[in-house]
Amino acid sequence: MRQSERIRGLTGGGSDGWDVFLKARRMIAQGIAVTELTIGEHDVRTAAPILQEMHRTAIGGHTGYAAVPGTASLRDTVAARVQARTGVPTTRDNVVITPGGQAALFAAHMAACDPGDTALYIDPYYATYPGTLRGAGAVPQAIRTRAEDAFQPRAEALRAHSANAVSLLINTPNNPTGVVYSDATLNVVAEICREDDLWLISDEVYDTQVWEGRHVSPRALPGMAERTLVVGSMSKSHAMTGSRCGWIVGPEAVIADLITLATHTTYGVPGYIQDASEFALTRGERFEAEIAAPFRRRREIAREVIARQNTVGLIPAQGAMYLMLDVRATGMTGEAFAYDLLDTHRIAVMPGESFGASAAGHIRVAMTIEDAAFRQALETLCRHAERRAA
Amino acid sequence: MRQSERIRGLTGGGSDGWDVFLKARRMIAQGIAVTELTIGEHDVRTAAPILQEMHRTAIGGHTGYAAVPGTASLRDTVAARVQARTGVPTTRDNVVITPGGQAALFAAHMAACDPGDTALYIDPYYATYPGTLRGAGAVPQAIRTRAEDAFQPRAEALRAHSANAVSLLINTPNNPTGVVYSDATLNVVAEICREDDLWLISDEVYDTQVWEGRHVSPRALPGMAERTLVVGSMSKSHAMTGSRCGWIVGPEAVIADLITLATHTTYGVPGYIQDASEFALTRGERFEAEIAAPFRRRREIAREVIARQNTVGLIPAQGAMYLMLDVRATGMTGEAFAYDLLDTHRIAVMPGESFGASAAGHIRVAMTIEDAAFRQALETLCRHAERRAA
Repeated sequence: MRQSERIRGLTGGGSDGWDVFLKARRMIAQGIAVTELTIGEHDVRTAAPILQEMHRTAIGGHTGYAAVPGTASLRDTVAARVQARTGVPTTRDNVVITPGGQAALFAAHMAACDPGDTALYIDPYYATYPGTLRGAGAVPQAIRTRAEDAFQPRAEALRAHSANAVSLLINTPNNPTGVVYSDATLNVVAEICREDDLWLISDEVYDTQVWEGRHVSPRALPGMAERTLVVGSMSKSHAMTGSRCGWIVGPEAVIADLITLATHTTYGVPGYIQDASEFALTRGERFEAEIAAPFRRRREIAREVIARQNTVGLIPAQGAMYLMLDVRATGMTGEAFAYDLLDTHRIAVMPGESFGASAAGHIRVAMTIEDAAFRQALETLCRHAERRAA
Repeated sequence: MRQSERIRGLTGGGSDGWDVFLKARRMIAQGIAVTELTIGEHDVRTAAPILQEMHRTAIGGHTGYAAVPGTASLRDTVAARVQARTGVPTTRDNVVITPGGQAALFAAHMAACDPGDTALYIDPYYATYPGTLRGAGAVPQAIRTRAEDAFQPRAEALRAHSANAVSLLINTPNNPTGVVYSDATLNVVAEICREDDLWLISDEVYDTQVWEGRHVSPRALPGMAERTLVVGSMSKSHAMTGSRCGWIVGPEAVIADLITLATHTTYGVPGYIQDASEFALTRGERFEAEIAAPFRRRREIAREVIARQNTVGLIPAQGAMYLMLDVRATGMTGEAFAYDLLDTHRIAVMPGESFGASAAGHIRVAMTIEDAAFRQALETLCRHAERRAA
């Protein structure tokens, strides 16, 4: 029996450079000590008070079907937080709770695109993006960017494809580059969305991890609230990756349709996880800063280490839990360098090529191990690059 | 901005008879005491030991991203359970864990159908079925059944549409009818799937709730393991509706593709929920019988009450947590009868019409309130029908 064309074509073929990652996993499984800098997972677990609140409400009986759109109080909490941070009037009718940010990305594209529609995304990109768009039946079209622009999209690159597209997916603070989009970039993005009548799907799951500049939600720009679907999540901001709780914020009519979609695709999110999420959100910005603090510290460490040499370049590390390093001076591809580093020093990083052609000759480093080991790994990495460049 | 045609057309328009349900909800919100027999939700909560295990493993640190296919040990546990109950060799590679049975239904159709493909389902049907098929881009085609056949599909009704279809969705034990498909029905279903090269999507979430006869998983029939996707869930068997943990069992190649789909649509299920589900499953059949016992008792009560009168007919109540009652002797539609019963006696039931044209003139009663109140509600319902029939 043959599966659908859609599901067989989801990844678009090719390894996408994940072979290095898989090799590192195999080495770890064999008991080899590998310094793991590949994945965006905090080195802390979800805080105990959040889990205790989850247990309290579960034992208290919140174990039956929760309302499919999300509990009224979590939707209110998310709406109030978004309104406070962006100034855009937001009520629970602008919010649907989803089982994680990935489910939100998929649902947003299901709402924006019909099968065959062109959906834009920015290269380099988070690994699931093109497959998510294909899963929703859309035809993904990458918008190439350049290292010298800190991988922020140029107007002309967007305009080359925007006239025929129905949606544009952006992510700031950005995974994999660690860049925060400038006001100028966001204004260009908004202008093109308005001109060409595009949906903007704005993945803002790293919005609490900003080290330099400020995060601007494009939903707050003129004429954008009616055409923007913001994807948010508890994963990165509250170290709740495994709890799979996210949301979409958007116009009421789309949210109503997304609730209908949720009825037919997920049937809601566990009530006790929503209660725990609400508890976590009401702990406020100080808690979020605590969760973000290790990445802020390690980004400083990285700037120090990188500044002491001239071989490895650092794309401005302004936000999120990653560094994008330019290793082109070694003459190697990102993938070749990553393999070489893994084989020689047992340090695992992601090749830039895993995230698209624009990041060729780069590697992505997740800042997700403790500070001293992180410093040592980066120093080793730089020395290794120097030797290869020589 | 306009949403996609797909999402706007998801429900196919019309109220589908859910207005009675919504009216009952409004009355309850206004403080009116309504006897609630509409929804398939247990009147017990998830058992405390299951929730304690969930908390133990969460506090123990299982709060990061769980493996997208599901934890190896939950997949093994589900595989062993399926193999023990059906005799079909099953390993973890035949299992993907999903965030609930509804997500499994959607994913199974994403795997089986491409946009525009015809997907069959049996009328009467669980309310989300046609929208789920539309969400996956398929064109839903209902197979009508008859009350005098206990709503089991006839070969000729299936054959009228099977040649042009790619999938057939069945549900036994059945919601809304409470019927368990006979061996004869399942053999016909299997024969047609083999002949016309259909995927069979077999929703077996009520497989632990069988009062009469036996549950046969059609995956165990000759030539069917290669073309059957079985949907299972913790919701009904373990009173874990709100925890959203389900699975698909099927051929390895499809499961591999479904894991790729999960990477792009849900990114897995909380690890602590999977651990709790594994704990619940290993409590064995006795625990499942305890969860099912109230419905078994109430089904006996219903048989007693219905046997004492001749106006309301009972479709053989062989499994699941519902009764399908024939109220055609009143001369009313199911919807008119349900409104009348709600207005007169404040008893809320679902009109058969909510579940498709085949169940017109019927009502569905969920056996989800305590025994004495359930008996009294059924007696009132029967007396009401007698008066209307007179």
